[in-house]
Amino acid sequence: SGLVLVKNPHLDLMEEDILYHLDLGTKTHNLPAMFGDIKFVCVGGSPNRMRAFAQFMRQELGLAGAGEDVADMCAGSDRYAMYRAGPVLSISHGMGIPSISIMLHELIKLLHHAKCRDVTIIRIGTSGGLGIEAGTVVITDTAVDSSFQPRFEQVVLDNVVVRSTELDKDLAEELLACSRDIPDFPTLIGHTMCTYDFYEGQGRLDGALCSFSSEKKLEYLRRAYDAGVRNIEMESTAFAALCGLCGLKGESCHFYLL
Amino acid sequence: SGLVLVKNPHLDLMEEDILYHLDLGTKTHNLPAMFGDIKFVCVGGSPNRMRAFAQFMRQELGLAGAGEDVADMCAGSDRYAMYRAGPVLSISHGMGIPSISIMLHELIKLLHHAKCRDVTIIRIGTSGGLGIEAGTVVITDTAVDSSFQPRFEQVVLDNVVVRSTELDKDLAEELLACSRDIPDFPTLIGHTMCTYDFYEGQGRLDGALCSFSSEKKLEYLRRAYDAGVRNIEMESTAFAALCGLCGLKGESCHFYLL
Repeated sequence: SGLVLVKNPHLDLMEEDILYHLDLGTKTHNLPAMFGDIKFVCVGGSPNRMRAFAQFMRQELGLAGAGEDVADMCAGSDRYAMYRAGPVLSISHGMGIPSISIMLHELIKLLHHAKCRDVTIIRIGTSGGLGIEAGTVVITDTAVDSSFQPRFEQVVLDNVVVRSTELDKDLAEELLACSRDIPDFPTLIGHTMCTYDFYEGQGRLDGALCSFSSEKKLEYLRRAYDAGVRNIEMESTAFAALCGLCGLKGESCHFYLL
Repeated sequence: SGLVLVKNPHLDLMEEDILYHLDLGTKTHNLPAMFGDIKFVCVGGSPNRMRAFAQFMRQELGLAGAGEDVADMCAGSDRYAMYRAGPVLSISHGMGIPSISIMLHELIKLLHHAKCRDVTIIRIGTSGGLGIEAGTVVITDTAVDSSFQPRFEQVVLDNVVVRSTELDKDLAEELLACSRDIPDFPTLIGHTMCTYDFYEGQGRLDGALCSFSSEKKLEYLRRAYDAGVRNIEMESTAFAALCGLCGLKGESCHFYLL
């Protein structure tokens, strides 16, 4: 049917669903009228970048209001920022798995309540790169954890539920094909490693609060490269797992910022 | 000496330390002049709340500029917001362990570069409560993980380093003593459970994207209560672990918001 799958029977029994961190809700807002025609959702860490992206999309799509300021649809919450450009929704998710996880829970319930169909969701973020040129765009085929495994471990009460982190291969190929029209950015498909920390988890020798040897770091990064990892960031496994759980066509693309 | 301990010998060998997510650095800013007299750092999730807290502190301390707007000292970054009120620094950390972890890394290095002495750091956040009245303030003696253990597991490259999550007991007692002057807020000292997720990790039956039984949820929360847990949030174990690692006197206080 193209609708979003929400595997929680309690959800439709609730009188009201308040999406706290988006400052939206089923009683306070007419979600089908506000969001029912959304076909693409782009998510990224920084609120300023997601506003700039919405403005860029308005221009690219030749929409009314292009060049003007765009209104934050979550203005009542300072946790996330959300902007619209026609059928495209642009939302910030902050940094790290817990932060993107809260946003995706509320976004996916929003798409469910709004009865959106055939939605494609794309994460557009920055990342570190591994054995690739700075400025490269990495399109993720599979997100992996710090042991290079394609899995996301979610604690549900005291159970650890393991979820798959494969992303939509066709969408990855489509995005790679688009990149051929833009010669300025080398683009490739590869594995993306997702860590819980920017400094210690990613072996930033200069920035961390503890010390470790540069030999050990190089050996680890070499093993990551050999396992197919081409970039490192902090949200992709949770993003891939939740897209998979809810039947959303999802992709994660990253710009390697040196 | 009262200085912040940074157990990374590489740090003092660097020509420049850029605190990327705070938009501050050792070459671009005179950190000792800007921050050398800081004695208290208060951290919380929401940027708006941390601005309001700085304004409140200016009034409480009778400082010049009380009642006026306060400037964001990280205005060049939209990742975090930072405000000053005399010797008190007020900083937002976003939601979840990775987000607070990035902020604390850069904050602790900032305190180190600024040669601050005898700094006390207090997290002031909201949380869920467990078997306590809404509106209660919980002062954390020990932060525990979802298995009720006083530990924080940090992945450093491919090693899992386990760190202690005990907080400063004397500071907890001092804060509890302060609370006796404010009759409106019941206050207690207890364990705080820290999760990686707001919905599934905390058993929010109505909000999650997967389903689980309410019996199992109650049984789990009962076990948490019996283990001494009085509230649940998403940052305390990482906060406690990094304070402990760097010799910072730290406490975490939470207002149970229903």
